Amino acid sequence: MLETKLKAFLPLLIQHLFLYHYLSSLLPISMACNNKFTLDSVRDALIREEDSIVFSLIERARFPYNAPAYDPLFLGNGFSIAEFYVRGTESLQAKIGRYQKPEDVPFFPKDLPSPLPPTKDSQKVLLHPASASVTVNEAIWKFYFTELLPLFTTKGNDGNYASTVASDFVCLQAISRRIHSGKYVAEVKFTDAPQDYSPAISSNDRDKLMDLLTFVAVEEAVKKRVEKKARLFSQNVTLDENDSGKTQYKINPLVVSHLYDKWVMPLTKVVEVEYLLLRLS
Amino acid sequence: MLETKLKAFLPLLIQHLFLYHYLSSLLPISMACNNKFTLDSVRDALIREEDSIVFSLIERARFPYNAPAYDPLFLGNGFSIAEFYVRGTESLQAKIGRYQKPEDVPFFPKDLPSPLPPTKDSQKVLLHPASASVTVNEAIWKFYFTELLPLFTTKGNDGNYASTVASDFVCLQAISRRIHSGKYVAEVKFTDAPQDYSPAISSNDRDKLMDLLTFVAVEEAVKKRVEKKARLFSQNVTLDENDSGKTQYKINPLVVSHLYDKWVMPLTKVVEVEYLLLRLS
Repeated sequence: MLETKLKAFLPLLIQHLFLYHYLSSLLPISMACNNKFTLDSVRDALIREEDSIVFSLIERARFPYNAPAYDPLFLGNGFSIAEFYVRGTESLQAKIGRYQKPEDVPFFPKDLPSPLPPTKDSQKVLLHPASASVTVNEAIWKFYFTELLPLFTTKGNDGNYASTVASDFVCLQAISRRIHSGKYVAEVKFTDAPQDYSPAISSNDRDKLMDLLTFVAVEEAVKKRVEKKARLFSQNVTLDENDSGKTQYKINPLVVSHLYDKWVMPLTKVVEVEYLLLRLS
Repeated sequence: MLETKLKAFLPLLIQHLFLYHYLSSLLPISMACNNKFTLDSVRDALIREEDSIVFSLIERARFPYNAPAYDPLFLGNGFSIAEFYVRGTESLQAKIGRYQKPEDVPFFPKDLPSPLPPTKDSQKVLLHPASASVTVNEAIWKFYFTELLPLFTTKGNDGNYASTVASDFVCLQAISRRIHSGKYVAEVKFTDAPQDYSPAISSNDRDKLMDLLTFVAVEEAVKKRVEKKARLFSQNVTLDENDSGKTQYKINPLVVSHLYDKWVMPLTKVVEVEYLLLRLS
């Protein structure tokens, strides 16, 4: 009797457990604890993201530049192979619940389908609701294809366009996630010292905010660390212990520190500034 | 006058260049040189693939196991989130020209769309035509989700299903590409010494072929190397030089050597054997 009742109850229980996990899941990865995040947890997430960015660049460097993948005339449907693939994959990922979090920002947000499982943007309460609108993906798309890609790929064309643009998309997503995590950085810094930021926000003073958010020594350390990661992760590993001095790196480690110096850190601060300007609205 | 003629000729020239590059592209990455590949070039490609596999596992380990992503009832459309995503992405990648090469084998080959740009499977002449049919993806799919995944992910559910299954797909593709590259290994070994393999092929002797393809010392070295790669690539890199002894690995390096020992190398040999059995057909 009890067993029959339990059996009848089981599907409902499972459904509730799924729903609970699904909703609790919408908290940002390893940043949230008891619905709060701290500067330390945000920093840890940013440092972990460095590894993802370095891995993704090394994987993209398996292929040469492959210009036809970026030619809007190649497919004959109005999109480059890269744009066609990114639009298609973003649509697919949106259907299974991506782009619900402030750091996951699509490159082509128009006409994205709704997720198939019912979701609720529970994590957005962690940040000021206006934050969702902050995006610098247009700038990321532009610097990635026109400036960064030629720096770490060889010239040439091996025709592996599908693998190439799939790798591009992984790079773009990792870089974008790192940069848009600036929303959390800004929120933590504001919450810790609203008196420091509020006057500049009220007077719409972008330069002052940029000043407040810039720590040269920290930025130098980040550049050194990502360069070190690129050196370690892109070396050719052999079992010969005497081999390590003469390795050929799969990507030039200086390109990664340059990426952080010229684009990742400046654009992260743009995200922080834009977030703060909306913070009192 | 000459300028006008050149201008008229330009679009045609560009189109021809693209077509030339597209066709030449269909050669396997860094394996083919003058339409030939050697055991050295195949081995180099396999060693490079190890890095991709290690990176992909480290990236998947950012998320816990996330059971609901593999529940066929969760989406309500008959597919698990993982299968829905892999089917959708394979379809998208097929449209832009993937799955033309013997080592790129889809997990769901039925009803894959044709590529949008016209292609010609020029690289298949490098291998025996029957090779295209050899696939062990069903076995890969099974061991990956049921046996491997629980070994290198933490228990639990953070709800990041879209990111989780996107990472799964990168792992699956890297592992599958490594294993199906066994087709090149088999072809090179056969071409180098047909007299060694032909009798076993003619008598359909799988065990004998497996013996001929097994080199214990080489396999031990591979296991050691991938473990070393996992240690190097999954360490927590800091600028503190004294920190390296106390790192916490993002994945257990022993899981990677286990993956190679239990699945990657045996299944590669299955691919080699199946390829050879078709080699004289």
